[in-house]
Amino acid sequence: MAAAGQAAPAGLPVAVDAMGGDKAPGEIVAGARQASEELGIPVLLVGRPEELGDTGDLEILAATEVIEMEDDPGQGVRTKKDSSLVRAAEAVRDGRALAMVSAGNTGATMASALLRMGRIRGISRPAIATPIPRPATHPSVLLDAGANAECSPAMLVQFAQMGSAYATARYGTPRPKVALLSIGEEKSKGTPLVKETHALLAELPGISFMGNVEGRDLLAGEADVVVTDGFTGNVALKSLEGALRFFMDALLGVFDTDEATRGAAQVLFPHLAPFAAAFDPDNTGGAMLLGVDGVCVISHGSSSARAVVAAVQVAHDVATGGLVDRLKQAVDPG
Amino acid sequence: MAAAGQAAPAGLPVAVDAMGGDKAPGEIVAGARQASEELGIPVLLVGRPEELGDTGDLEILAATEVIEMEDDPGQGVRTKKDSSLVRAAEAVRDGRALAMVSAGNTGATMASALLRMGRIRGISRPAIATPIPRPATHPSVLLDAGANAECSPAMLVQFAQMGSAYATARYGTPRPKVALLSIGEEKSKGTPLVKETHALLAELPGISFMGNVEGRDLLAGEADVVVTDGFTGNVALKSLEGALRFFMDALLGVFDTDEATRGAAQVLFPHLAPFAAAFDPDNTGGAMLLGVDGVCVISHGSSSARAVVAAVQVAHDVATGGLVDRLKQAVDPG
Repeated sequence: MAAAGQAAPAGLPVAVDAMGGDKAPGEIVAGARQASEELGIPVLLVGRPEELGDTGDLEILAATEVIEMEDDPGQGVRTKKDSSLVRAAEAVRDGRALAMVSAGNTGATMASALLRMGRIRGISRPAIATPIPRPATHPSVLLDAGANAECSPAMLVQFAQMGSAYATARYGTPRPKVALLSIGEEKSKGTPLVKETHALLAELPGISFMGNVEGRDLLAGEADVVVTDGFTGNVALKSLEGALRFFMDALLGVFDTDEATRGAAQVLFPHLAPFAAAFDPDNTGGAMLLGVDGVCVISHGSSSARAVVAAVQVAHDVATGGLVDRLKQAVDPG
Repeated sequence: MAAAGQAAPAGLPVAVDAMGGDKAPGEIVAGARQASEELGIPVLLVGRPEELGDTGDLEILAATEVIEMEDDPGQGVRTKKDSSLVRAAEAVRDGRALAMVSAGNTGATMASALLRMGRIRGISRPAIATPIPRPATHPSVLLDAGANAECSPAMLVQFAQMGSAYATARYGTPRPKVALLSIGEEKSKGTPLVKETHALLAELPGISFMGNVEGRDLLAGEADVVVTDGFTGNVALKSLEGALRFFMDALLGVFDTDEATRGAAQVLFPHLAPFAAAFDPDNTGGAMLLGVDGVCVISHGSSSARAVVAAVQVAHDVATGGLVDRLKQAVDPG
């Protein structure tokens, strides 16, 4: 049996929380079947067997409880010990699964992974690493996207190390450019947290620190990894999402004005498709909880079957690629 | 002579820093002339007379020095006492001008206004209030957009009071909805700063507090005023700007693909124009430094003549509308 988080044999399944997400269990089960059938990645479906419908050949791990979206994360994990989320995390801990994927309650997913898999030794706090599309190249990685509202400079330094290792594992970037999110490029700009972190990162071996970036650099910038506290990261990410959603809606509204605009839209759609695909959250493979002793993919709540396929693929690839070992090495290279 | 900041007689000019901005002095002088000729608002041009070109009938206040974009703000104001920025702020202080407008060095604009006009009594720190377009209605006001990287709950409470008074003065909103920027709607979400501020705002008389909003609510939300610290506000604002810029560029690129797409674009342009106008920073009238004892408009660095016209209009309107008295009343209603 492989210990959790080591580069595990590809034969192990990815545990998928069948009960988590706005479209669970229907789309989740459909995505899990698709991943198994099309990608050949075995999936362990975790949930209430009687609610899962036709699961095909998939292996099922029965769990009688569900942590709902509105449940308190910590309390949910403590009181619902037979929930799909807790059981999925235990499957990774026990070497029965390569990795876990959930589109359910984000806080409870983090709590399940942290409490059942444990932290990687030497890491003070796990962080959520979220892909930010950069249509010209592979996505950049923003962390922390919301796990830790309050951070210390030492935590941000670990986020830089973890983010760099993750960018390599996930996108194959050999020496990711790491940036610190601030309100000016000068190292004198920002909060004391940012200024102290800047000084530490500038001296840190093992990463390629390029300095500060601003919010406007997130979509089109040079940074492969953008480090920030979980409060700022969450605000920045949701500001981007809101702006893109707003603009998309405005554009679709204009397209649908009259016969002439609908015709014009037909001409443009094929050219707009690559952008729409790049910004479709179902395509990114989801966010990753970095710092726990196992692979945990956090999919967005509205995940479709396609999102589940992408998440299973990413979970499988980074787990078999030894993500957890890379993270251990990144924070404790000695 | 009117004391600075009181609802001053409309006959007083708006002081315009002719030397500040990427397109100064050409576009600045052109905009000042246009404001005077088209809006009938008198303008006092501040700068080096020999560099201003044809200033028409505009009154000129000679200033021999210029605080450059790359100058340190505090040092610039201390050492360049005969700079256009410092002289413009003094003109407001001395009751020679209704208000000041600059597209120059933002930090030096703040420092000039603060050091020459002084703070409104009872206000601990001035804040930058930036309009965020909401195409369905008038813009919302985000503050602080970058004046104070570090804030206390008491400062955010004053930002809420000032923002509310400003939204009324600027957009005529009788009882602006004030929100706190956080990472979830629940009052338990966010940093200690946000949680403490939430508790204070919930009990605060004189404003209409609607609770927390998230980054995704900025463009399409209900809030007329969004309160946050200057670090988070600046990151959120630049994230929005970056996303909109990215999307605009992508769209223009698609439009210019070939003959067919150029034709389609022609059909769509008239329908897209209102959105482009709403998001054109030259149309917003600029940001406002709230909390100093006088009206100070901070225009963006790339301001065109049109941006100067809009800024002069806004400066004139809020000054004659008694903005500074409203702010005094808002923070000290007793």
